[in-house]
Amino acid sequence: MKFLFINGVNLNMTGIREKGVYGSQTLDEINAEISARLKGDTCEFFQSNIEGEICTRIHGSESEGFDGIIINAGAFTHYSYAIRDAIASVNVPAVEVHLSNVHAREEFRRKSVLSEVCRGVICGFGKNSYILGAESFKL
Amino acid sequence: MKFLFINGVNLNMTGIREKGVYGSQTLDEINAEISARLKGDTCEFFQSNIEGEICTRIHGSESEGFDGIIINAGAFTHYSYAIRDAIASVNVPAVEVHLSNVHAREEFRRKSVLSEVCRGVICGFGKNSYILGAESFKL
Amino acid sequence: MKFLFINGVNLNMTGIREKGVYGSQTLDEINAEISARLKGDTCEFFQSNIEGEICTRIHGSESEGFDGIIINAGAFTHYSYAIRDAIASVNVPAVEVHLSNVHAREEFRRKSVLSEVCRGVICGFGKNSYILGAESFKL
Amino acid sequence: MKFLFINGVNLNMTGIREKGVYGSQTLDEINAEISARLKGDTCEFFQSNIEGEICTRIHGSESEGFDGIIINAGAFTHYSYAIRDAIASVNVPAVEVHLSNVHAREEFRRKSVLSEVCRGVICGFGKNSYILGAESFKL
Amino acid sequence: MKFLFINGVNLNMTGIREKGVYGSQTLDEINAEISARLKGDTCEFFQSNIEGEICTRIHGSESEGFDGIIINAGAFTHYSYAIRDAIASVNVPAVEVHLSNVHAREEFRRKSVLSEVCRGVICGFGKNSYILGAESFKL
Amino acid sequence: MKFLFINGVNLNMTGIREKGVYGSQTLDEINAEISARLKGDTCEFFQSNIEGEICTRIHGSESEGFDGIIINAGAFTHYSYAIRDAIASVNVPAVEVHLSNVHAREEFRRKSVLSEVCRGVICGFGKNSYILGAESFKL
Amino acid sequence: MKFLFINGVNLNMTGIREKGVYGSQTLDEINAEISARLKGDTCEFFQSNIEGEICTRIHGSESEGFDGIIINAGAFTHYSYAIRDAIASVNVPAVEVHLSNVHAREEFRRKSVLSEVCRGVICGFGKNSYILGAESFKL
Amino acid sequence: MKFLFINGVNLNMTGIREKGVYGSQTLDEINAEISARLKGDTCEFFQSNIEGEICTRIHGSESEGFDGIIINAGAFTHYSYAIRDAIASVNVPAVEVHLSNVHAREEFRRKSVLSEVCRGVICGFGKNSYILGAESFKL
Amino acid sequence: MKFLFINGVNLNMTGIREKGVYGSQTLDEINAEISARLKGDTCEFFQSNIEGEICTRIHGSESEGFDGIIINAGAFTHYSYAIRDAIASVNVPAVEVHLSNVHAREEFRRKSVLSEVCRGVICGFGKNSYILGAESFKL
Amino acid sequence: MKFLFINGVNLNMTGIREKGVYGSQTLDEINAEISARLKGDTCEFFQSNIEGEICTRIHGSESEGFDGIIINAGAFTHYSYAIRDAIASVNVPAVEVHLSNVHAREEFRRKSVLSEVCRGVICGFGKNSYILGAESFKL
Amino acid sequence: MKFLFINGVNLNMTGIREKGVYGSQTLDEINAEISARLKGDTCEFFQSNIEGEICTRIHGSESEGFDGIIINAGAFTHYSYAIRDAIASVNVPAVEVHLSNVHAREEFRRKSVLSEVCRGVICGFGKNSYILGAESFKL
Amino acid sequence: MKFLFINGVNLNMTGIREKGVYGSQTLDEINAEISARLKGDTCEFFQSNIEGEICTRIHGSESEGFDGIIINAGAFTHYSYAIRDAIASVNVPAVEVHLSNVHAREEFRRKSVLSEVCRGVICGFGKNSYILGAESFKL
Repeated sequence: MKFLFINGVNLNMTGIREKGVYGSQTLDEINAEISARLKGDTCEFFQSNIEGEICTRIHGSESEGFDGIIINAGAFTHYSYAIRDAIASVNVPAVEVHLSNVHAREEFRRKSVLSEVCRGVICGFGKNSYILGAESFKL
Repeated sequence: MKFLFINGVNLNMTGIREKGVYGSQTLDEINAEISARLKGDTCEFFQSNIEGEICTRIHGSESEGFDGIIINAGAFTHYSYAIRDAIASVNVPAVEVHLSNVHAREEFRRKSVLSEVCRGVICGFGKNSYILGAESFKL
Repeated sequence: MKFLFINGVNLNMTGIREKGVYGSQTLDEINAEISARLKGDTCEFFQSNIEGEICTRIHGSESEGFDGIIINAGAFTHYSYAIRDAIASVNVPAVEVHLSNVHAREEFRRKSVLSEVCRGVICGFGKNSYILGAESFKL
Repeated sequence: MKFLFINGVNLNMTGIREKGVYGSQTLDEINAEISARLKGDTCEFFQSNIEGEICTRIHGSESEGFDGIIINAGAFTHYSYAIRDAIASVNVPAVEVHLSNVHAREEFRRKSVLSEVCRGVICGFGKNSYILGAESFKL
Repeated sequence: MKFLFINGVNLNMTGIREKGVYGSQTLDEINAEISARLKGDTCEFFQSNIEGEICTRIHGSESEGFDGIIINAGAFTHYSYAIRDAIASVNVPAVEVHLSNVHAREEFRRKSVLSEVCRGVICGFGKNSYILGAESFKL
Repeated sequence: MKFLFINGVNLNMTGIREKGVYGSQTLDEINAEISARLKGDTCEFFQSNIEGEICTRIHGSESEGFDGIIINAGAFTHYSYAIRDAIASVNVPAVEVHLSNVHAREEFRRKSVLSEVCRGVICGFGKNSYILGAESFKL
Repeated sequence: MKFLFINGVNLNMTGIREKGVYGSQTLDEINAEISARLKGDTCEFFQSNIEGEICTRIHGSESEGFDGIIINAGAFTHYSYAIRDAIASVNVPAVEVHLSNVHAREEFRRKSVLSEVCRGVICGFGKNSYILGAESFKL
Repeated sequence: MKFLFINGVNLNMTGIREKGVYGSQTLDEINAEISARLKGDTCEFFQSNIEGEICTRIHGSESEGFDGIIINAGAFTHYSYAIRDAIASVNVPAVEVHLSNVHAREEFRRKSVLSEVCRGVICGFGKNSYILGAESFKL
Repeated sequence: MKFLFINGVNLNMTGIREKGVYGSQTLDEINAEISARLKGDTCEFFQSNIEGEICTRIHGSESEGFDGIIINAGAFTHYSYAIRDAIASVNVPAVEVHLSNVHAREEFRRKSVLSEVCRGVICGFGKNSYILGAESFKL
Repeated sequence: MKFLFINGVNLNMTGIREKGVYGSQTLDEINAEISARLKGDTCEFFQSNIEGEICTRIHGSESEGFDGIIINAGAFTHYSYAIRDAIASVNVPAVEVHLSNVHAREEFRRKSVLSEVCRGVICGFGKNSYILGAESFKL
Repeated sequence: MKFLFINGVNLNMTGIREKGVYGSQTLDEINAEISARLKGDTCEFFQSNIEGEICTRIHGSESEGFDGIIINAGAFTHYSYAIRDAIASVNVPAVEVHLSNVHAREEFRRKSVLSEVCRGVICGFGKNSYILGAESFKL
Repeated sequence: MKFLFINGVNLNMTGIREKGVYGSQTLDEINAEISARLKGDTCEFFQSNIEGEICTRIHGSESEGFDGIIINAGAFTHYSYAIRDAIASVNVPAVEVHLSNVHAREEFRRKSVLSEVCRGVICGFGKNSYILGAESFKL
């Protein structure tokens, strides 16, 4: 299978910022581990701090033949109706993931504007949220 | 007259995504049709998925001599106070348009943060919303 | 085409009251101008301050063979579920119009209970809102 | 017993509009059926699209000797404090009825400003809501 | 001075309904008492259960030369933006009055959509609310 | 026909507690009266103070061949999404009933989480609410 | 009759501050005018910027033999449940007054926590609000 | 590892009710499939329609030596602070799962009172939500 | 005197779970201490995790001759209108108690649906809340 | 032990005002009874209608060696963040008490801004609320 | 320049209470430091726990010739519309300051009723908030 | 010291747009003035209309050795949780500044999602807000 892992704003700081919340592995290290684990599959990784670039990348996902999107949009999760509409505009199913359990943090993190257009949601398992997200397509 | 048609996030997917809602003509085809219809006028078309680029484009509209802006900001309509302030920062009057009747869809689409600083609002007429928006400047 | 222009409560005061907001043409003058502009079409004009009379007029519109209703319900816009249901009860499509940009005025004017059952909404263009509403049926 | 059946705004369109929701019998046919079923009782039927006329009719119900009012106020149900106060102003008990189950439709239909001053509420049984309403007075 | 006393919906039932709340004098008796008290002034009395008729009456008040309107809109007070706009459309100043202290009753009676466009508000003094309203113009 | 009458929490106290609100007949006496009145039909009565037992009883209603459920869930009405989902999980139609007019009591009693999945709602007629509920299936 | 006129916080600034809103007469001048007008009655005037002193003054009003309190609590109107309870603790009836029409100003001024325990409310008539308040006791 | 799978109210109806939403496998079949898939682990399954029984089962989970709880509380998810506190009272980590994507259904299903005290949340993957929940403990 | 101490859901875990919040004495130890302290009185203790069983126990309290109920309903406090109605259905007065100061914890714990029907509320004194609750009946 | 009993605004009217709610003993009588009951302890009583004086008294309580504060702030309970911060500023623990059950009265009385910084809350037991508050320090 | 530094309720406890939040310098020490720093200017310091005294002090500030007010109203910030109106009643510009960053503390501290009538707001810099406030007048 | 001044969306229009609100100096002129004033310090200025670019710039600030960030995010202030998280992800302290007093303008401008993670907030002093922000680091 061919997966697109999208990481949104500030996720380039993973392993650097707030390690108590997000762990101490960098995004590159996490991506390497995901690739290793899913070695029979094709994994592409995309990170951007710019909402519109994420939308554009999602738009292209269908013609690029992806079977699934695993998206951790970071703070965009809570207000980016733009990304929401981008996900709804393609036929590639998406799974929303989060490193932390967003429900056990600040109130504003409990609202996701993306969940309604995703196939499912997985949160709270650190880097394993990505892996469970990918595996959800293979069960 | 000289018009600037601004299309926001995901509108590059018009005619491709959710055709039941947005119709099956692409944005280029719609733009061509608008130009044909307004053949005595100058029509410029700008689309971007990046909120800040739209703001920048609006900033420039006054010195470029536009008589009016017709803007369909897509999902940015519902939360981009940035675009709102950009519209308020120039003396070129703007008309807010939408392809679909946003009031007959999801609750979140009923709120526009742009309307207050626009001259008027037109929604629900598909591609004709753009044409009616342009004509509103000529009546 | 055959159009029914419905004006709701207080619109008989147009051109008389609050000219800064609504302009200085009377409703009769506006109607005359609309007729002139749409001279190939049949235009009927109906104004009432009584909510129930407006409902009754809408009920009759289908059997009278109207192709479209252009309705400015005035203050009824904000609470008359009665007119809403009347619009929904006939097969004649309706367009909601307003003289002023209701989104740039008092908070209570931002809520329309009619929009959801109309084909589209046009506001902010003074008397031209009616004309654009009629033209929307002809594009 | 002597019953007054009051039908509010748009109910003259029953059997004509939205048959999927309201059924295909006209109001006259429904009234005839009610009369037939309650043949030992006196049944009067009143329909108006004008809120104030309904209030006036309710005002008169006491001196006319009615034992009970069965009222389906249509869309007035949701905002007419006028009808609410009219019901409260007479000693004739009223039962609020609805053709459809208003709780399974749009959110705004869930709020009734009349219920608090009625003896009881019956909704969801089509024309039988009227009959059950009348029978409630006879049990 | 020339005063227009407007009574809205259900106020024709004053002295008949809920005497504990509204007193036992009929509206005619109250009006007679007001006239007697203001014998040097011209007093006209208008009551209607129909919102639109009240709007129409207000529209005419300016050309009829009234110096002031004393309006008790009854239940319309709480939702009739139509009457609000009618008051705002004429240059005759209006005073909003109520028989009872609306702030000490049901929650919904605490909201008036008329107050903002009136010169002042007087409530809680029974029939004397009308008299105080008229006197407010003479101080 | 075969009816299942379900009474929820505290309804075993009917006729014992708050007689001013609920009347002075016990639940057994009410049930006997219902049976007598519907003598050509099969009536089963089930009361439980335990939410989950009510759900289980509803689950079984389809295989037991019931034609209709008449349910007065008591206080569960206001928050038991469990019972709501139980009703939605079977093909036996349900009618929600209440002894008192819940709209004329405490605010919290005005919200029912069950109504949306029931065929209809009847409240305010004391024990007769059950009888009208059963009769609604026979009209 | 014996009246106690209570003026709350900042009302010592009347005629000094914001003359556009409150007029240019000082509180002493207004009080003198009230006394002159009510020359057959006993008028006492009390002003304090301290909430608790106002409460204490109200507590004493009953034993001092006042027939009525006319209170303009200023900004305390909007949050002082203390003054509310003080008014409720004595048998001297109170009338709430305001110089300006509080309903036509900032949103927070529309809420009065005092109105519910007063006999009536009068606002919008400048200094005449006090006079009308006193007259309300004499009608 | 030793897992406790808890299914709450109405989940005994899985595969029977609303197959479009929940699929056509029964809970027993799903459980069997989970056991097969996790054959090296110990899996216990508990279903109850009674909130308190679920709490009691959770209380015992620590002394029974479970490594993790995978809980689908059904409708209890949305209001059972009881189950929330039960989860918080034991040291066995819990993962909240749902068959459907609760964010794409009725509004009330978007609120979970359990998420805050769970390690993570997984929803939208049908029976695979349970399997992903179990696997989350093994990564 | 004869007291019934009712402990609701999860209180069987007292002294076991979250000792920082609830202390380290078990419920049995607390009950023993209460009995010792109130040695001249009859104390009965009832704990259940099942909401309906608590209702049933309350129903029986009157015929069992209890002088007072001291109830700590645990998490049921916040949503169980069932227990609320059960308390209201008997003539035995109830005092609501809590081990912790519920106002200094999560927001949801600040709302009690029981308080309105109890004689009084005591919270924040650990096991002594029960003792103070019992003593309140003896003062 | 040394206790400071603080009574807030209007409590000097206890036994005088609204005896149905607050009883017929005066505050002095209640204080005398408290002193008598706690004869082995030092009791000081402070009452003020002025919020700031209460704050100042609390500030001094620590240096005066009080072991506990029992505070009934009256109406200040509902909005005085000043008193809240005063309580938080000293190391003397405070218990919030009320004569009446505030949860069974007006909605606004259900909100206390003090509870969060107090050790506990006791309400509904008349004068005994003070005594239970003092005893809570001695258990 | 001549500055008036106003400190509201509980600020006399600065350096004594909650040192983690407010620092360990007393208000006198802070004032001395401000005076030293602004040695070319006239600084007056006023602290009161009584809302009304603060209003009175503000009233006098204009005639006393102050160029600016630097006000830290403490908890009054969040609800004292009285102080708000006092500030608005004088022509001396005011700057609102806070020792702590009120936005990073309890929710209720985020609302200031004073900000709207102040020239600007400065918070989060401990004692330096006062100094920055004064300097703002000199830039 | 080394300062990073970040200006968000539309601030490139300062001195050009809405001069009544923002003054007539351009951003470059303001920056030059700041540099002149802080001549002993290193000042870097960054402006972008693109939210993600601002995040990226903040990410880099720590390794670039900045001692403090002074950020005026423009309209992003009100909804960009992305910028909020970016600020929280670095150890460089940030001060939030605004040219105008945002509390005295539209309601939406009163909410800042950034304040909670900044050291302090300064608004209302025009260009001096930046200077005060920088000085706050040097006191």
